Amino acid sequence: MALVMDRDELAEFLDEAFPQVKGDFAIEALDEDELVVRLKVEERHLRPGGTVSGPNMFALADVGIYIAILARIGRVALAVTTNASMDFMRKPAAGADLIAKIRVLKLGRVLAVGDALIYSEGDDRPVARASMTYSIPPRAMG
Amino acid sequence: MALVMDRDELAEFLDEAFPQVKGDFAIEALDEDELVVRLKVEERHLRPGGTVSGPNMFALADVGIYIAILARIGRVALAVTTNASMDFMRKPAAGADLIAKIRVLKLGRVLAVGDALIYSEGDDRPVARASMTYSIPPRAMG
Amino acid sequence: MALVMDRDELAEFLDEAFPQVKGDFAIEALDEDELVVRLKVEERHLRPGGTVSGPNMFALADVGIYIAILARIGRVALAVTTNASMDFMRKPAAGADLIAKIRVLKLGRVLAVGDALIYSEGDDRPVARASMTYSIPPRAMG
Amino acid sequence: MALVMDRDELAEFLDEAFPQVKGDFAIEALDEDELVVRLKVEERHLRPGGTVSGPNMFALADVGIYIAILARIGRVALAVTTNASMDFMRKPAAGADLIAKIRVLKLGRVLAVGDALIYSEGDDRPVARASMTYSIPPRAMG
Repeated sequence: MALVMDRDELAEFLDEAFPQVKGDFAIEALDEDELVVRLKVEERHLRPGGTVSGPNMFALADVGIYIAILARIGRVALAVTTNASMDFMRKPAAGADLIAKIRVLKLGRVLAVGDALIYSEGDDRPVARASMTYSIPPRAMG
Repeated sequence: MALVMDRDELAEFLDEAFPQVKGDFAIEALDEDELVVRLKVEERHLRPGGTVSGPNMFALADVGIYIAILARIGRVALAVTTNASMDFMRKPAAGADLIAKIRVLKLGRVLAVGDALIYSEGDDRPVARASMTYSIPPRAMG
Repeated sequence: MALVMDRDELAEFLDEAFPQVKGDFAIEALDEDELVVRLKVEERHLRPGGTVSGPNMFALADVGIYIAILARIGRVALAVTTNASMDFMRKPAAGADLIAKIRVLKLGRVLAVGDALIYSEGDDRPVARASMTYSIPPRAMG
Repeated sequence: MALVMDRDELAEFLDEAFPQVKGDFAIEALDEDELVVRLKVEERHLRPGGTVSGPNMFALADVGIYIAILARIGRVALAVTTNASMDFMRKPAAGADLIAKIRVLKLGRVLAVGDALIYSEGDDRPVARASMTYSIPPRAMG
């Protein structure tokens, strides 16, 4: 599944497509096997107790898998999430950014599927796992 | 599964346990069969295009099922979400609050499970479905 | 979502479409709100210990939601399961049939979604919950 | 997560714990990172059309992740599946065995989580993805 956007183009697309979270995410690495996305954790992402909340981990996985798919099919801003499954396995470390490592598993005519493992930076035990499906609008594949 | 908190007590607990979203949610109804929770949709919950974002629907389902469980086991603020599965089935209506209808399906010694159907107010076709599992800390069940 | 097949037509379709499990399932009730399907539990469905195995509960939910969708769109034997999520909440009772109560939540142009609660006959606490998505081939919707 | 059973011990446990599917599965490889399990596809695993049915892919993922966990905690035959999520992404190839590549993502006091990618032998595009959670009985961890 060859890439049609490089890391800079994908970063630019991310800011345009998700202006409401501009600055929250950074693209750390992108190649044909894996996309690495960082959530720059701020006070507003935290639950009482100091760990990143579930909805913010959901957003990291959703945005990450979405842009990993678009890196392969181009700027199709209308693809929509149809299914999400997550396992929350450990409490994220307080004060650490979250790092999502993302794979695209299927890129079909109407559906695309990817998964993510999310880590607290500096710890190799995943805090969460996510898999998500996106519906691709009819003309998107060219 | 008898209730140990009434609607007012649950509303008070909601504000204490989730101060970061205080005012976002309102408890519409609570009985032994169903909890109904409203997301009072504001500009900050929307994606470009004007519909509620996935992470905000996740938060509605997560908070709703969590407090539906606590209404039956009491104030156990340490219960944590371990699994979430969601289907996003229709685009929420612009300008409408979201209404989640929640059932508790299992209340075990270590795990509790609930599900939710989420609607745009005034439309009887669900926009999303969620099921979530919570791990209950050892002393929580008394 | 009006029905286009009645209970007898659906039973006939079930035997034709799933000859490998012929006789395992019976349609107990069908209306616009709910389909009720019975798994007639036999020795071959059991794990050691005498309870129905996970794959057989998966099959009950999958077949049930599939035919609930087809009862609304007609005989489209090519619809395929794309996503499944299940929670196994209680051990099924030994010696009891399983009863699945199924709802169709979405019937779209390319995707259909349904969910199921599975019970041991005679017990009103669900043993499992399932939600499944099906991809509908392009010409299926008429 | 160090192994406490080697491949031969695990194969022996598999036959004892799942006598109803004896001979269906073979352990191809086992190390600390990955367990590889083969489903030796026979006529009885197929749907009309000649591809492996969903329940048989579910069984492959469930048995595989289960024994991958037991390879790390020892013979705890009472661990039970509590949640399963699967994406069915491509039609399995007719006439090919299925190969599941399994990782253990979490091994906690009460819950263990693993995931699987399932392939038709000889094709490097996954046909399905699964993640499963198991509840571990209180005395299992020693």
